[in-house]
Amino acid sequence: RKTVCVFGTGDFGRSLGNKMFQCGYSVVFGSRNPELSGLHPKGIEVLSYTEAAQRSDLIIIAIHREHYNFLTELAEELQGKILVDISNNLKINQYSESNAEYLAELVPGAKIVKAFNTISAWALQSGALDASRQAFVCGDDKEAKQRVMDIGRSIGLTPMDQGSLKAAKEIENYPLQLFPMWKFPLYLSAALCVFYFVYCMLREVIYPYIQEEKDNTFFLAISIPNRIFPGLALNLLALVYLPGIIAAILQLYRGTKYSRFPNWLDHWMLCRKQLGLVALAFAFLHVMYTLVIPIRHYVRWKWSSRIINQIKNNKTDPFNTTTAWLSDSYVALGILGFFLFVLLGITSLPSVSNTVNWREFRFVQSKLGYLTLILCTAHTLVFGGKRFLSPSILRWYLPSIYVLSLIMPCTVLVLKFILVMPCFDQPLTRIRQGWE
Amino acid sequence: RKTVCVFGTGDFGRSLGNKMFQCGYSVVFGSRNPELSGLHPKGIEVLSYTEAAQRSDLIIIAIHREHYNFLTELAEELQGKILVDISNNLKINQYSESNAEYLAELVPGAKIVKAFNTISAWALQSGALDASRQAFVCGDDKEAKQRVMDIGRSIGLTPMDQGSLKAAKEIENYPLQLFPMWKFPLYLSAALCVFYFVYCMLREVIYPYIQEEKDNTFFLAISIPNRIFPGLALNLLALVYLPGIIAAILQLYRGTKYSRFPNWLDHWMLCRKQLGLVALAFAFLHVMYTLVIPIRHYVRWKWSSRIINQIKNNKTDPFNTTTAWLSDSYVALGILGFFLFVLLGITSLPSVSNTVNWREFRFVQSKLGYLTLILCTAHTLVFGGKRFLSPSILRWYLPSIYVLSLIMPCTVLVLKFILVMPCFDQPLTRIRQGWE
Amino acid sequence: RKTVCVFGTGDFGRSLGNKMFQCGYSVVFGSRNPELSGLHPKGIEVLSYTEAAQRSDLIIIAIHREHYNFLTELAEELQGKILVDISNNLKINQYSESNAEYLAELVPGAKIVKAFNTISAWALQSGALDASRQAFVCGDDKEAKQRVMDIGRSIGLTPMDQGSLKAAKEIENYPLQLFPMWKFPLYLSAALCVFYFVYCMLREVIYPYIQEEKDNTFFLAISIPNRIFPGLALNLLALVYLPGIIAAILQLYRGTKYSRFPNWLDHWMLCRKQLGLVALAFAFLHVMYTLVIPIRHYVRWKWSSRIINQIKNNKTDPFNTTTAWLSDSYVALGILGFFLFVLLGITSLPSVSNTVNWREFRFVQSKLGYLTLILCTAHTLVFGGKRFLSPSILRWYLPSIYVLSLIMPCTVLVLKFILVMPCFDQPLTRIRQGWE
Ligand SMILES: Cc1cc2nc3c(=O)[nH]c(=O)nc-3n(C[C@H](O)[C@H](O)[C@H](O)COP(=O)(O)OP(=O)(O)OC[C@H]3O[C@@H](n4cnc5c(N)ncnc54)[C@H](O)[C@@H]3O)c2cc1C
Ligand SMILES: Cc1cc2nc3c(=O)[nH]c(=O)nc-3n(C[C@H](O)[C@H](O)[C@H](O)COP(=O)(O)OP(=O)(O)OC[C@H]3O[C@@H](n4cnc5c(N)ncnc54)[C@H](O)[C@@H]3O)c2cc1C
Ligand SMILES: Cc1cc2nc3c(=O)[nH]c(=O)nc-3n(C[C@H](O)[C@H](O)[C@H](O)COP(=O)(O)OP(=O)(O)OC[C@H]3O[C@@H](n4cnc5c(N)ncnc54)[C@H](O)[C@@H]3O)c2cc1C
Ligand SMILES: NC(=O)c1ccc[n+]([C@@H]2O[C@H](COP(=O)([O-])OP(=O)(O)OC[C@H]3O[C@@H](n4cnc5c(N)ncnc54)[C@H](OP(=O)(O)O)[C@@H]3O)[C@@H](O)[C@H]2O)c1
Ligand SMILES: NC(=O)c1ccc[n+]([C@@H]2O[C@H](COP(=O)([O-])OP(=O)(O)OC[C@H]3O[C@@H](n4cnc5c(N)ncnc54)[C@H](OP(=O)(O)O)[C@@H]3O)[C@@H](O)[C@H]2O)c1
Ligand SMILES: NC(=O)c1ccc[n+]([C@@H]2O[C@H](COP(=O)([O-])OP(=O)(O)OC[C@H]3O[C@@H](n4cnc5c(N)ncnc54)[C@H](OP(=O)(O)O)[C@@H]3O)[C@@H](O)[C@H]2O)c1
Ligand SMILES: CCCCCCCCCCCCCCCC(=O)OC[C@H](COP(=O)(O)O)OC(=O)CCCCCCCCCCCCCCC
Ligand SMILES: CCCCCCCCCCCCCCCC(=O)OC[C@H](COP(=O)(O)O)OC(=O)CCCCCCCCCCCCCCC
Ligand SMILES: CCCCCCCCCCCCCCCC(=O)OC[C@H](COP(=O)(O)O)OC(=O)CCCCCCCCCCCCCCC
Ligand code: HEM
Ligand code: HEM
Ligand code: HEM
Repeated sequence: RKTVCVFGTGDFGRSLGNKMFQCGYSVVFGSRNPELSGLHPKGIEVLSYTEAAQRSDLIIIAIHREHYNFLTELAEELQGKILVDISNNLKINQYSESNAEYLAELVPGAKIVKAFNTISAWALQSGALDASRQAFVCGDDKEAKQRVMDIGRSIGLTPMDQGSLKAAKEIENYPLQLFPMWKFPLYLSAALCVFYFVYCMLREVIYPYIQEEKDNTFFLAISIPNRIFPGLALNLLALVYLPGIIAAILQLYRGTKYSRFPNWLDHWMLCRKQLGLVALAFAFLHVMYTLVIPIRHYVRWKWSSRIINQIKNNKTDPFNTTTAWLSDSYVALGILGFFLFVLLGITSLPSVSNTVNWREFRFVQSKLGYLTLILCTAHTLVFGGKRFLSPSILRWYLPSIYVLSLIMPCTVLVLKFILVMPCFDQPLTRIRQGWE
Repeated sequence: RKTVCVFGTGDFGRSLGNKMFQCGYSVVFGSRNPELSGLHPKGIEVLSYTEAAQRSDLIIIAIHREHYNFLTELAEELQGKILVDISNNLKINQYSESNAEYLAELVPGAKIVKAFNTISAWALQSGALDASRQAFVCGDDKEAKQRVMDIGRSIGLTPMDQGSLKAAKEIENYPLQLFPMWKFPLYLSAALCVFYFVYCMLREVIYPYIQEEKDNTFFLAISIPNRIFPGLALNLLALVYLPGIIAAILQLYRGTKYSRFPNWLDHWMLCRKQLGLVALAFAFLHVMYTLVIPIRHYVRWKWSSRIINQIKNNKTDPFNTTTAWLSDSYVALGILGFFLFVLLGITSLPSVSNTVNWREFRFVQSKLGYLTLILCTAHTLVFGGKRFLSPSILRWYLPSIYVLSLIMPCTVLVLKFILVMPCFDQPLTRIRQGWE
Repeated sequence: RKTVCVFGTGDFGRSLGNKMFQCGYSVVFGSRNPELSGLHPKGIEVLSYTEAAQRSDLIIIAIHREHYNFLTELAEELQGKILVDISNNLKINQYSESNAEYLAELVPGAKIVKAFNTISAWALQSGALDASRQAFVCGDDKEAKQRVMDIGRSIGLTPMDQGSLKAAKEIENYPLQLFPMWKFPLYLSAALCVFYFVYCMLREVIYPYIQEEKDNTFFLAISIPNRIFPGLALNLLALVYLPGIIAAILQLYRGTKYSRFPNWLDHWMLCRKQLGLVALAFAFLHVMYTLVIPIRHYVRWKWSSRIINQIKNNKTDPFNTTTAWLSDSYVALGILGFFLFVLLGITSLPSVSNTVNWREFRFVQSKLGYLTLILCTAHTLVFGGKRFLSPSILRWYLPSIYVLSLIMPCTVLVLKFILVMPCFDQPLTRIRQGWE
C-alpha cells in the first residue's frame, strides 16, 4: 500500500492517521511545528507541510477551513494530487460555497475528494463507530474517489458514493443536523399538548376545586396525561392521513397531477412517517398508563369504597350485560388498533421497509393504516358510548376531551369515505395514471 | 455526464427523466407526438423516437411491453446501444419470456439491461422512496449494467446487481408479489381460528345459553379471543419446530441427507420464520388481552360480588398457598416465555440477523426457540393445573380449549426429547455431516 | 462464465458446487476417489485432483486444513491460479497462522483468497440464508478477490471486502464466536442476580419463616423476581454511564486525552451497548411482572381481605391525597423512564443507528440516556418514599433491596452533576478537543 499523507496533527488528523497506520498504511504527517508533535506511534514521521506533500500523491487535509489559505503556497507541490477534504463547519450553510469547492478553487490543479467528515475523531479512535460507519464520499475524479473509498473500507467504514463534488454542500451539512424531519411533528405535538393540558386542568382540576372544593391535583401524574396522550395520538394519526386526502382533492379540482403542490403540503406529506411514529409513541404511553390503572392507589381506594358502600347500603349493583359489552368492546378495539399501530411502526424500520416491495409497503401503510385509524376512532367512540353528548358531562360548557379528539379523525374518515366512492375514485385514478 | 434518452413521455418516463435532469444529466425524450407533450422543465427536449435515439447511446424504454413492436423499425438506430427495460406486467408470469428478453429478441444488436421496474413513479417524483430504494438490475453486458447502476446511484437509489438477463423474469415478478411467504401461515391461522372460534362458541356461549339460559354473548369481545389467540400462538409455535423434527426422522429413516425432501416439507421449512412471527403476533394479543383483565367491567363486577358474598355469608375464603404457587408460577412462566418469544422476533429483524453469525443465529433460533416452546407449554400446563382432565370441565363432552392446544406442542417436545437421546442423535449427526 | 473447480466432494464442497451449477456456472469436482462420489446433478464431472485442477484457473478448496498437505504435490498445476480457502477451525486461534496464510505458504505461486467460510453448507443448500448472507472476503490480489466476490454475488450472498490476506485470521475466528461482547454483561448480571437472590431470600422468605413461621416460598415466582429484576436493571443502567465518568476523571487527572485508558476501562466502554440492552431486558421483565400484579391470586386475596377487614371493623380507610400523589408519581416516573429506555433500545438497532448522524446518535444515547437514568432513579426514590430509611423496614439489619439498588445510580448522577459544572466541564472540553 502506498504512503498516505495527513496535513494537520490535530484531533482528527491524529485519529485518522493512527487508524490508517494500524490498518497497514504507511503514514506521514505534515505540521506547522513538526518537532513539537509527540505521541505518534513509532514509524509515523512528522514533517513540514512541504516535505510531507512530496511523499505521497494522496493528502488528507485535517485542518479547519479557516486556515486553508496557506495551501495556495503549496499549489505547485499539490499539482495533480488527490486532496481529501474532511472539514466540517459550525453552522448549516455557513459559507456560500462548500469547503471542498473552496479548496478546489484554492488549489486548482488538484483532484478534490470530500470524505470522512461525518466520522467522529473519538469514535474512530475508540472503535465505537455506531452512528458513523457510513462515510459519504463525493468528488469529480472517479479514480481519486475510488482510492479514497478503498481507504475508508479498509479502516472499517462503509463508504457511500454521493456523486460529483456538487454534493459536498449536502455532505457538509449532514453531521450538523439534529432530526430535521422530526421538528414539525414534535413542535406540533408540543403545541397540541399544551392546549390539551390547559383544557384538562380547567375541567378536571380547577372546576372541581372551585365547585366542590376537591383537591384533584394528584390527577396531574396519571389521570390527566392519560387523557392528553391518547387524544394526541388519535389526532396525530388523523393528521398522518389528512394530507393524502387534501392532495387528492387538489388533484381532482385541478384535473391534473402535474402541477406542484403548495410547499406546506409537500413538507407535510414528507414528514408523515415522523408524525405517525410520534403518534405511536403517545399511543404507547396511553397503553402503559392504562395498564397500570388497577395498581394506582386512588383507583384501588375508589373500587373498595364502592364495594363498602354497596354493603353498607345493602344494595348490590346488578350485572349489566350492555355495560359489559360496551366496556369489553372498546377495550378490544383499542388493543386491535394498537396492534396494527405497532405493525406500522415495525414496517417503518429501515431494514424491514427495505425488504418489502412497493406494493407490500403501501398495503401495510395505506390499507392497514386506515384500518388502524378506524379502529382507534371506534375505540374512542365506544368509550364515549351513551354519555357521549349528554349535557351532564359538560363542565363550564366544555365537553370531554375525547369529544374534541374525535373531530379530526372523524373528518378524515368521512372525507376518505367520500373519496373512495366510484364517482370520485375513478376520475382520481385516471388523473393519477397521468391522463389529463 | 453524457446525455440520456427516454422513450415514452408517460408517467414513469416523465418522473425518471425529470429526476435525472435534476441530478445533472442532460435528458432527451422520444415520443409519438413530440409537440403535444408539455410540462417538461426547460432544457429537456422532446423529439420523435428516431431523432431522440440518435442523441444518446443509453435509452430508457418507458413504454408498456404491449407497444414494444414499433422498436423493430428503429433496430438500426439502436444497434450497439444500451436499452434499459423498466416495464412491469399486470400478473405474475404473464408472458412466457420476460419483457427484457422479449426486447432483446426485438432488437438483437442492442445491450439490454433490466432495471428500475421496482421503483414507483410517484415515489420517484415525491422523494418518498421508503420501500423502493432497492433497484434490482440485471443484464448480460457488464459495462452497460455498470452505467445503469451509476445512474441509479446518482438519483438516490441502491442498485443491486442480480446477474445476467436470465434474472429479468424474477425481477419483473418481484413488484407484483404481496407477501408470498406469509400466505400459508396466514391461511393456516385463519383456518385454525375459525375452528377454535366455533368450538369456543359452543362451549362458552351456546352451552350456557341452552343449559342455564345465561347470556354470555359479551364474551365475544375479550374472553373468547383470549382463549383463541393463546391457543393459536402455542400451536403455531409448535408448528414452527415440527418440520425440523419430521426432517430429522426422514433423514434417519433414509440414512442420507442427500435425497430431496418432499415439496410440502421444503415449503414448510422455508416459511417457519413467518409462522413464528404470526405466532408472536397472537401471543402479543394474548398478553394485551390478559393485562386488561382487571379493568374489564365484567371482571370487576365478579370480583366485587365475590367479596360481597363472602361478607354476606360471613365466610372468608382462607388463603391457599398452593393456589398462590400455581397462579404465580403459571403467570411467571408465561412472562418468561413471552420474553424469549420477543427476543426471537428481534433477532429476525433483517438488520439484526445480518450482524450475527450462523452459530449465534442458530443458538437463538433453535436453542432459545425450544426453550420458548417449553416455557409456553409449561405455562399452559400449570394454568390447567389440577382441573386439567377432571370431568367437571367437560361440556357436551368437549374439553377446555387449552387441552386441545396442548396436543401439538407436547407431541413436538416429546419427539424432540426422543431425538436428542444419544441413540438417535449420533446417527443423525453423522448423517448430517455427510456420512452415508 | 468460466469453469469453476471445487476440490473435495464433502458436505460443503457439494453444496457450493451444486449451488454454483444451479446459478449457471460449469463446475468440475476434484476428489480422491472420483468414481465413488455419486449424487451429483448431471453435467457436473468428478475427476482426480490433478485433472480437475487443469480445467479451471479458479479452485475452491473445500477440504479441512489438516489435509492440505497433499496440495504441495500439485503446486505446479496450481501455479498462478486463484485458490479460494473456505476452511474453518474448531477453536478460536487454533493455529498460529490462519489457514489461508498456511495455504499461501504451501502453494507459493497461487493467488489465495479467503472466502465463504462464514456460510453454512446447509443454509446454502436449503436457501435459508438468514444469518449468513454476509460473506467476508479477503486476499492480496485485487482481481482474484473481485472474481470471487462476483461468484458470491451471483449465488445470492453479500460479499464484504475485508482487505488483505492478513484479515484471514479474523474472518476464520468470526464464525466460531458466540456473542463475545455479551459475555461480560451477562456474567456480571448473573453474579448480581445471585447476590440479590440470596439477599431477598433472607429478607423475604427466611426471616418471615423464622420470625413468624409464615410460608412465603411462593414469593419465589413473582414477588422476589420483581425485586431482583428492577434492581438489576437500575444498577446495570448506572454501570452503562459510569465508565464515561471514570474516563472523564482520568482525563482531567492526567490532563491529556492522548494516553491510553487501562484495558479494563477500554473493554467496559466498548460493551456499554450490550450492558444497556441487558438492562433493558430486565426492565422489560420488571414491567411485565408489575403489570400482572392485579391478576395474581395472592394480591387479589390480600386486597379483598383488606376490604373485608374494613367492613368487619366498621372502619373505612380515608382517602389520602399524599399517598395518591406519591403512588401515582412513582408509577408515572417509571413509565416515562421505561419509554425512554425503549427508545434507546430502538436506536441501537443497526438499521436505525445507521441512518442517524453522530450528533443525533449522541443526543439520544447520551442526553436521553442520562434522562432515563434520572427518571428511573427518581422512580425508585419516590417508590421508597417516606419509609425509605425508617428502621421499621430493616430485617436482621438488612435494608430493603431498593435501598441497595440506589447506591450506584445516585453515585453516578452525583458525579455527573459535578462534572458538568463549568469548573470541570471547561478544562475537560479543552482536553477532549486535543489541547494539552
Ligand atoms: C406508526 C406509523 C409509521 C409510519 N411509517 C411510515 C414510513 O415509514 N414511511 C412513510 O412513507 N409513511 C409512514 N407513515 C405514514 C403513512 O402511513 C403513509 O405515508 C401512508 O402511505 C399514507 O397513506 P395514504 O393512503 O394517505 O397515502 P397517499 O399519499 O394518499 O397516497 C396514496 C397512494 O396513492 C398514490 N399516489 C398519491 N399521489 C399520487 C400521484 N400524484 N401520482 C401517482 N400516485 C399517487 C401513491 O402510490 C400513494 O402511495 C407511518 C404512519 C404511522 C402511523
Ligand atoms: C418469533 C420467531 C421468529 C423466527 N424468526 C426466524 C427467522 O428469522 N429465520 C428463520 O430461519 N427462522 C425463524 N424462526 C423459525 C425457527 O425459529 C427457526 O427456523 C429455527 O432455526 C428452527 O429450529 P430447529 O431446531 O427446528 O431447526 P432445524 O431445521 O431442525 O435445524 C436444526 C439445524 O440442524 C442443521 N441441519 C438441519 N438439517 C440439516 C441438513 N440436512 N444438513 C446439515 N445440517 C442440517 C442446521 O444447521 C439446522 O439449523 C422464527 C421463529 C419464531 C417463533
Ligand atoms: C438500552 C440501551 C441501548 C444502548 N445502545 C447503545 C448503542 O447502540 N451503542 C452505544 O455505543 N452505546 C449504547 N448504549 C450505551 C450508552 O447509551 C452510550 O454508550 C452512551 O453514549 C454513553 O454516554 P456517555 O455520555 O456516558 O458517553 P461518554 O463515553 O462519556 O462520551 C461522551 C462523549 O464525549 C465524547 N468523548 C468522550 N471521550 C472522548 C475523548 N477521549 N475524545 C473526544 N471526545 C470524547 C464523545 O463524543 C462521547 O460520545 C446503550 C445504552 C442503553 C441503556
Ligand atoms: N474532531 C472531529 O471529531 C472531527 C470530525 C470530522 C471532521 N473534523 C474536521 O477536521 C478538521 C480538523 O479538526 P480537528 O478537530 O482535528 O481540529 P484541531 O484539533 O484544532 O486541529 C487542527 C489542526 O490544523 C492544523 N493547522 C494548520 N494551520 C493552522 C492554523 N493556521 N491554525 C490552527 N491550526 C492549523 C494544526 O496542526 P499542526 O499544529 O500540526 O499544524 C491543528 O492541529 C476540521 O475541519 C474539522 O471540521 C473533525
Ligand atoms: N408508473 C409506475 O409507477 C411504473 C413503475 C415501474 C415501471 N413502470 C413501467 O413503465 C412503463 C410505462 O409506464 P407508465 O406508467 O409511464 O405508462 P403510461 O403513463 O401509460 O405511459 C406509456 C407511454 O408509452 C408511450 N407509447 C409508445 N407507444 C405507445 C403506444 N402504441 N400506445 C401507448 N403508449 C405508447 C407513450 O408515450 P408517448 O405518448 O410520448 O409516445 C405513453 O406515454 C410500463 O412498462 C410500466 O410497467 C411504471
Ligand atoms: N460444513 C459446513 O457447514 C462448512 C461451512 C463453512 C466452511 N466449511 C469448511 O469446509 C471444509 C470442508 O468441510 P466439509 O463439511 O465439507 O467436510 P467433509 O464433509 O468432511 O469433507 C471434506 C472433504 O475433503 C476431502 N479430502 C481431501 N483429502 C482428504 C483427507 N486426507 N481426508 C479427508 N478428506 C479429504 C474429501 O473429499 P474427497 O473424498 O472427494 O477427496 C472430503 O469429502 C472445511 O475446511 C470446513 O471448515 C464447512
Ligand atoms: C414499545 C415501543 C413502542 C413505543 C415506542 C415507539 C417509539 C416510536 C418512536 C420511534 C422513534 C424512532 C427513533 C428515532 C430515530 C430516528 O430518527 O430514526 C431515523 C430513522 C430514519 O429513517 P429514514 O432514513 O427513513 O428517514 O427512522 C427510523 O428508523 C424509525 C424507526 C421507527 C421504529 C419504530 C419501532 C417501533 C417498534 C415497535 C415495538 C413496539 C412494541 C410495543 C409493545 C408494547
Ligand atoms: C409489540 C410488537 C410485537 C408484537 C407484534 C409482533 C408482530 C409480529 C409480526 C411482525 C410482522 C412483520 C412485518 C411484516 C413485514 C414483512 O414482510 O417483513 C419482511 C421481512 C422479510 O425478511 P426476509 O427478507 O428475511 O424474508 O421480515 C421481517 O423483517 C420481519 C421482521 C419481524 C420483526 C418482528 C419484530 C418484533 C419486535 C418485537 C417488539 C415486540 C415488543 C413487544 C412488547 C410488548
Ligand atoms: C419488548 C421487547 C423489549 C424488551 C426486550 C428487549 C430485549 C433487549 C435485548 C435485546 C437483545 C438483542 C439481541 C441480541 C442479538 C445480537 O447480538 O445482536 C447483535 C447486534 C450487534 O450489533 P453490533 O454490530 O453493533 O454489535 O445488536 C443488536 O442489533 C441489538 C439490537 C437491540 C434491539 C433492541 C430492540 C428493542 C426493541 C424495543 C421494543 C421494545 C418494546 C417494549 C414494549 C413493551
Ligand atoms: C392496548 C390498547 C388500548 C387500551 C387497552 C386502551 C384502553 C383505554 C381505556 C381503558 C380508556 C379509558 C381511560 C379512562 O378511563 O380515562 C381509553 C381511552 C381512550 N383511548 Fe384507549 N386504549 C388502547 C389503545 C388506544 C389507541 C391506540 C388509541 C388511539 C390512538 C386510543 C385512544 C383513546 C382515546 C382518545 C381515549 C379517550 C381518552 C379520554 O379522553 O379519556 N386508545 N383507552
Ligand atoms: C406476559 C406473558 C403472559 C401472561 C401474563 C399470560 C397470562 C395468562 C393468563 C392470566 C391466562 C389465563 C387466561 C384466562 O383466565 O382465561 C393464560 C392462559 C393461556 N396462556 Fe398465557 N400468558 C402469557 C404468555 C403466554 C404465551 C407466550 C403463550 C403461548 C404462546 C401463552 C399461552 C396461553 C394459553 C394456551 C392459555 C390457555 C388459554 C385458555 O384456553 O384459556 N401465554 N395466560
Ligand atoms: C412501565 C414502567 C414501570 C412501572 C409501571 C413500574 C412500577 C413499579 C412498581 C409498581 C413498583 C413496586 C413494586 C412492588 O410493589 O414490589 C416498582 C418498583 C421498582 N421499580 Fe419500577 N416500574 C416501571 C419501570 C421501571 C424501570 C424502567 C426501572 C429501572 C430501571 C424501575 C425500577 C424499579 C425499582 C428499582 C423498584 C424497587 C424494587 C423493589 O425493591 O421493590 N422501574 N416499579
